[in-house]
Amino acid sequence: MSHPEYQRIPPQSGTSFTIRRGQVLRVVDPMGEQVSDLFAFAEGEHGCALSSGRSLDYAGHIYLTTGDILYSNNSKPMFTIVADSVGLHDFLLTPCSQEMFEILYKHEGHHPSCFENLLKGLQRYGIEAPQIGTTFNIFMNVKMDPAGVVTVGVPTSKAGDYIELRAEMDMVCGLTACSAEGSNNGCFKPIDFAVLG
Amino acid sequence: MSHPEYQRIPPQSGTSFTIRRGQVLRVVDPMGEQVSDLFAFAEGEHGCALSSGRSLDYAGHIYLTTGDILYSNNSKPMFTIVADSVGLHDFLLTPCSQEMFEILYKHEGHHPSCFENLLKGLQRYGIEAPQIGTTFNIFMNVKMDPAGVVTVGVPTSKAGDYIELRAEMDMVCGLTACSAEGSNNGCFKPIDFAVLG
Repeated sequence: MSHPEYQRIPPQSGTSFTIRRGQVLRVVDPMGEQVSDLFAFAEGEHGCALSSGRSLDYAGHIYLTTGDILYSNNSKPMFTIVADSVGLHDFLLTPCSQEMFEILYKHEGHHPSCFENLLKGLQRYGIEAPQIGTTFNIFMNVKMDPAGVVTVGVPTSKAGDYIELRAEMDMVCGLTACSAEGSNNGCFKPIDFAVLG
Repeated sequence: MSHPEYQRIPPQSGTSFTIRRGQVLRVVDPMGEQVSDLFAFAEGEHGCALSSGRSLDYAGHIYLTTGDILYSNNSKPMFTIVADSVGLHDFLLTPCSQEMFEILYKHEGHHPSCFENLLKGLQRYGIEAPQIGTTFNIFMNVKMDPAGVVTVGVPTSKAGDYIELRAEMDMVCGLTACSAEGSNNGCFKPIDFAVLG
């Protein structure tokens, strides 16, 4: 693999890029306690997209980490997690959105969101809003108690923590530095990433 | 409301139907320990579809029951649960599919599945496979331990148990009697339903 040349996603923003089968996406939390939402489509076949429900079903557990596979809605492996210094990522919740800030936090006026930032980034590939489903929420600390009550905690990621995902097909990806105060200990920070290999 | 006139979904099959805003979908487990997968789209706007990720985020818990709302991907209320004699339904896993039986159970040859049955039913409304996401899996007993390990148990529903969901918009719905041995205590049974009001 070539030496990582990181790209920085500024706070409360996002980006999009292509990745080839066999390349590795490395996502780094440069300052700690920051979340990054990932979504992906098969290149040239956008009906094939990341699926939380299939991935959790096939893994048999909800906290995906090294060795686990992220599947598409039509049961094709999209990513294999090949390294993970954190081990706590969420694959249950949809990306934060304008509507989420209004419904959960009674926010008035525009609020930056991962959903908006993913859509902005992915539109150049022809992706439309309804195609963006439940994201793989890297470094997001979502816990459930035995009764099923969901709690969003401060990410456990420290500065420099990372995850590496090997692409199992050619894809277009959207990736964010999360915009939600409640997911990032009240502070907005950047996310670094590199496509290796 | 009019007197319920139930329709029966035979074992390992499915159906589709329209429902008007304000009507109530009543789903009954006539023999006990059977699962029924529900998916829905806004009528005439199929980009607006049921979203597990949004519903769990807004509810703040993963076991949705009376009083909880099932949201669309664009954050519109689709159903409100208005009655529920069971209180244990899954909204994490995708409907069982041919690929699921192959990947998880090494099944060879065709296996009936909720995904296939939903698609068969919904195709007459112009719905295609990639549009069918994570279903609301009525009566399905999915538990997680604190480490996030997922266990599919025998449904706790007894003969005659039911759930009622009020439609918050005009929709097209797919509904099944589940095809997976592992979800239904190894026995395939029918599901009854009625659209009330």
